[in-house]
Amino acid sequence: MEIRLAKSYGFCFGVKRAIKIAEESPNSVTFGPLIHNKNEINRLKERYNVGLVEQIEEVPDGGRVVIRTHGIPKDKLTLLRQKSVEVIDATCPFVTKPQEIVEQMSDEGYSVVIFGDSNHPEIKGVMSYAKDPIVVLSVDELRTHLPSIKEKVATVAQTTRKFEEYQKIVAFLMGHKKEVRVFNTICNATFENQDAARELSKEADVMIVIGGKNSSNTKQLYNICKENCPDSYLIENASELRPEWFEGKKMCGITAGASTPNWIIEEVIENIKKNQV
Amino acid sequence: MEIRLAKSYGFCFGVKRAIKIAEESPNSVTFGPLIHNKNEINRLKERYNVGLVEQIEEVPDGGRVVIRTHGIPKDKLTLLRQKSVEVIDATCPFVTKPQEIVEQMSDEGYSVVIFGDSNHPEIKGVMSYAKDPIVVLSVDELRTHLPSIKEKVATVAQTTRKFEEYQKIVAFLMGHKKEVRVFNTICNATFENQDAARELSKEADVMIVIGGKNSSNTKQLYNICKENCPDSYLIENASELRPEWFEGKKMCGITAGASTPNWIIEEVIENIKKNQV
Repeated sequence: MEIRLAKSYGFCFGVKRAIKIAEESPNSVTFGPLIHNKNEINRLKERYNVGLVEQIEEVPDGGRVVIRTHGIPKDKLTLLRQKSVEVIDATCPFVTKPQEIVEQMSDEGYSVVIFGDSNHPEIKGVMSYAKDPIVVLSVDELRTHLPSIKEKVATVAQTTRKFEEYQKIVAFLMGHKKEVRVFNTICNATFENQDAARELSKEADVMIVIGGKNSSNTKQLYNICKENCPDSYLIENASELRPEWFEGKKMCGITAGASTPNWIIEEVIENIKKNQV
Repeated sequence: MEIRLAKSYGFCFGVKRAIKIAEESPNSVTFGPLIHNKNEINRLKERYNVGLVEQIEEVPDGGRVVIRTHGIPKDKLTLLRQKSVEVIDATCPFVTKPQEIVEQMSDEGYSVVIFGDSNHPEIKGVMSYAKDPIVVLSVDELRTHLPSIKEKVATVAQTTRKFEEYQKIVAFLMGHKKEVRVFNTICNATFENQDAARELSKEADVMIVIGGKNSSNTKQLYNICKENCPDSYLIENASELRPEWFEGKKMCGITAGASTPNWIIEEVIENIKKNQV
């Protein structure tokens, strides 16, 4: 049986970069979990003594703290910088960008509209750089805020939002305001994994999707694969593999959610190969 | 029979303003026809001695020249200003705005995309204020220009274009460039006349549309009326009215194209009333 990896899978650029930064910062703590994967967090702890704190007060004096890809609100960053700790910024550059944009746009007197989820850590961070930002997930929500938005408005999007939905937000804004300054801050990584999974699952007769069972992006990958390849399975790690899935199959496709580290993927591949022998 | 005027009809704000400026500038010439209506041009000539020239060389030395609502290219304005003539600017403020915007955006290093017809006098004027502007009427046209457009792009629209088409241009641009600065320079005047004609023609049992038979906006008004009121007639002036159109009718609706002066509309109304007696 042939085993083929999707052209794009697993960690995005920003997460790969953050993990590298953490590995290069032994004996530090991350402020919030670096990724939504306990195995990887344990690995960083065991191998590099990179711990995890959830509150500023927990960061040890004289220690080192790593800011995760999502970034953090400006006031918390300021508090951290005021402490006698070394701040190591692993904020994804694709998240730093909208933070910088909304800060500059606020300074220039624009209203700021953020297309995203105000409860998401990334957006909490971005919001903190704008003056009175409007955060919406839909045109209906945006409509209720129209009276408080100036004629000059700048807009950014959460990096993981759907582009088509952002287009609707912009199309609406331009019908109501004189100047709309649109910054396309959506990152293609999620969609690249999805596109690659779609392509591969059309050719595979069994698909293995590796990722957290509660991870929304992993579930989306699984649904896409299932559509094209009925024998698709979602697993968190190699221990869940069952030999009967591969009986009589010719090509096994592999993909992984955005929080799945490479070493877990490699373990899965090794296991499938072993079972074949 | 009741006679009712559409809530919005005839001249837009910019044309009303330009005619007032011309009336207040006797013994001048306009650079190009002030409006697409010979009757009105003749009236200005006879009553205010406001003439018409098509070339800069024709503007008499020491004379006064009126710039029409469309505006003119920057180099021609400069040439006029270098002559010993008084330049009276009747450019519609809604046209001056995009001229100023594209000039500023070019200065700030943005590529400029103009949604409009490069052969239209308004757009010829606006284009002249931008550095290497891209002028397109559709997304397909825009696509061919993508490689020459910078990551920072500003966009304006011809005042008379359809908003929905402009939204498509912007939706496309934001998918390909990092920053899209959208200025909504579309003027609602044309659409206000159309909306009002639609509304009135639903209630009228005869509709009179007054305007040039070659005028595209008048023909559009006529088509809208015809849809709702089969007894709709397009006339250029009162002499074309026929008494039989009004026989047994209860309500006559009146609208007029964007180049139809009020005095022609008033003549038509007077004539209809007379025939009724």
